[in-house]
Amino acid sequence: MREYTNYMADRVKTMKGSAIREMFKRMADPEIISLAGGNPAAELFPSDELSKIAGKILMTSPTLALQYGTTDGYPKMRDCARARAAKVNSVSENDTVLIMTGANQGIDLTAKAVLNKGDKIIVESPSFIGSLNAFRTYEAQLIGVRVEDDGMSMDGLEEALKNNSDVKMIYTIPTFQNPTGTTMTLDKRKKLLELASKYDVLVLEDNPYGDLRFSGGEVPTVKSLDTEGRVIYAGSFSKILSPGMRLGYIVAPAPLAEKIEMLKQVNDVHTPMLTQLMCVEFMKKYDIDKYIEKNRELYGRKCAKMVESMEKYFPAGKVKWVVPEGGIFLWCECPSIDDITPIVDKCLDKKVAIVPGSNFATDIFAPSNMFRLNYSSATLENIEEGIRRIGEVLTENL
Amino acid sequence: MREYTNYMADRVKTMKGSAIREMFKRMADPEIISLAGGNPAAELFPSDELSKIAGKILMTSPTLALQYGTTDGYPKMRDCARARAAKVNSVSENDTVLIMTGANQGIDLTAKAVLNKGDKIIVESPSFIGSLNAFRTYEAQLIGVRVEDDGMSMDGLEEALKNNSDVKMIYTIPTFQNPTGTTMTLDKRKKLLELASKYDVLVLEDNPYGDLRFSGGEVPTVKSLDTEGRVIYAGSFSKILSPGMRLGYIVAPAPLAEKIEMLKQVNDVHTPMLTQLMCVEFMKKYDIDKYIEKNRELYGRKCAKMVESMEKYFPAGKVKWVVPEGGIFLWCECPSIDDITPIVDKCLDKKVAIVPGSNFATDIFAPSNMFRLNYSSATLENIEEGIRRIGEVLTENL
Repeated sequence: MREYTNYMADRVKTMKGSAIREMFKRMADPEIISLAGGNPAAELFPSDELSKIAGKILMTSPTLALQYGTTDGYPKMRDCARARAAKVNSVSENDTVLIMTGANQGIDLTAKAVLNKGDKIIVESPSFIGSLNAFRTYEAQLIGVRVEDDGMSMDGLEEALKNNSDVKMIYTIPTFQNPTGTTMTLDKRKKLLELASKYDVLVLEDNPYGDLRFSGGEVPTVKSLDTEGRVIYAGSFSKILSPGMRLGYIVAPAPLAEKIEMLKQVNDVHTPMLTQLMCVEFMKKYDIDKYIEKNRELYGRKCAKMVESMEKYFPAGKVKWVVPEGGIFLWCECPSIDDITPIVDKCLDKKVAIVPGSNFATDIFAPSNMFRLNYSSATLENIEEGIRRIGEVLTENL
Repeated sequence: MREYTNYMADRVKTMKGSAIREMFKRMADPEIISLAGGNPAAELFPSDELSKIAGKILMTSPTLALQYGTTDGYPKMRDCARARAAKVNSVSENDTVLIMTGANQGIDLTAKAVLNKGDKIIVESPSFIGSLNAFRTYEAQLIGVRVEDDGMSMDGLEEALKNNSDVKMIYTIPTFQNPTGTTMTLDKRKKLLELASKYDVLVLEDNPYGDLRFSGGEVPTVKSLDTEGRVIYAGSFSKILSPGMRLGYIVAPAPLAEKIEMLKQVNDVHTPMLTQLMCVEFMKKYDIDKYIEKNRELYGRKCAKMVESMEKYFPAGKVKWVVPEGGIFLWCECPSIDDITPIVDKCLDKKVAIVPGSNFATDIFAPSNMFRLNYSSATLENIEEGIRRIGEVLTENL
């Protein structure tokens, strides 16, 4: 085959696929217990309700469901998204709500609207690889700020802002962060906004897990504390209804939203209509918060089972973690080693999958002694058995 | 509100929304006859079949439909897309098929994978505004080559290639082109590939209308004539099943497809699962070609009605057009004037919507004496009535 590198844009020449996705391919083996992904619990999907809803929509509103829609989203779906954002005081009168084909699309297109080549974006380190890779495709420079047990380091943030010109935006997942599971304190959120104001940068707040708190008290979103119109807020239905439906939204100041909408228009034109209509109907007929409550309760139990198993099977004193108050991830550090990769491989040999920390770093080539665990998708039994197997590997190798 | 321009990337600062979309907003008036859009005929949507299929999928395969899927597409959906491409000999063993959330996404992400800022892309002038605007968002330079009655001018193409270095790609809609409705001859397709080879550039073939031929003989796709692996092919289910489902695909040489897949991963992660599963099931249970045949027949009748009405109501000798052999668009030129805009506005006053030609030009600020008509979405009665009203305006103003 011909050599295609010469035809490629610089932005993709050195781009590598997510190692997580590669791992998923190795995971085709059905015996593998996966604690690697970010899948919500499938056992709670309201499939009967959605089945009836989908059938009925296509019967009663076929043209609406099958014809072209508008780029900003089906109006009632925009109302639903606005209502979700309003519930956490994260939409102002100057904001526009845009429906996205998953919140990730909103993050990608916000980055596209804001970042020139060479611009800098401050991100938590570690952070969600999908967003980091999106920023990389605009040839932006990622500046990582370390995540502490109570969220992004504010000293680190101030230093990053002081030492770098051309910072356009701070990207944060303040609540039940991916991958660390940590939550930024209220004081830090206020400080973050103070710094954003002082250095005149935007903030992109990604909040896919915020509804999934199972312990501790609510912390206001960064967006809800913003008095200067600096925060763009990304919300998602993936973790509270269904990820396969690909429904998310962006709340952004109108002038920015207008540009993001144009970028969506040239991307997928609009989010599929049927899934939007299904979400609207589900929220009309059922109490989504009751449904979310079931998820919270389940995730609380699964997290407790994972922590209990870690205490039982992991070699004492060799692994550090912070117990999350919600969300779907648990983050582990092995201070006595430099590189977790051989341990992750050995876990896979024992048919349990976890993700090495390097995947979430701004420098993906730097070794990491950390790994991410997911407790939302596996069963309680598999959580214990998976942790037991990891414990064996850790005991042998730490 | 604060001034946001300083935070914006250069690519969006001067970007303007599609005037067509703006027109759609004026068209909320239900009395308006729209010959402006690009909607397929809603009366033929197989909504009963899709209703049963959707309900059943969510009952029998809820996890598959509602959980995360893979970025490249649901495997059986990829098979369906591959089968559609194979039907027109447009997939080779070196190609990868990727499912897209509409073909437009495939065009956007192909451009993202190929175009650096300042790179040149040759496009038909006029051409589909969604693609042109996508290319503009990568700060590529668009080089327009005029469309003749039998497709893109090959003299114009050679000149453009000779006079411009840094051309990375030629974008073409060779069959039932949007907006002109013209089809490129076989000889021109061969010449296009010869020139692409001589000047070592890629070709992006966009073929959303190819299945909708209602007269004349089939012409092979450019992709089917490609022996050098230069052609990326974009196919769509929007005009043969449903645009609201947002299902399309890209057929690309594997090394390029790998990059496009990564760009999709950071964009919407994957195309919604339910719509993919519905398409697979529809193609399994029903003969999609029989369904397409109904569309062809209807569009042939609608096109004939439009042409017949134009002959009856348009001022004789003042408007030129080429009768299309398929697709959904008819393109008109008024040689006696320079700018169609006032006429388009007067048509809207008479409650009929058409699109001025300037929207499809590489230079959107240059006046145009052309306009685009769509015959797929209006009823036969409305086509005649719409053309009658346009005829009144033209008779008064030409």
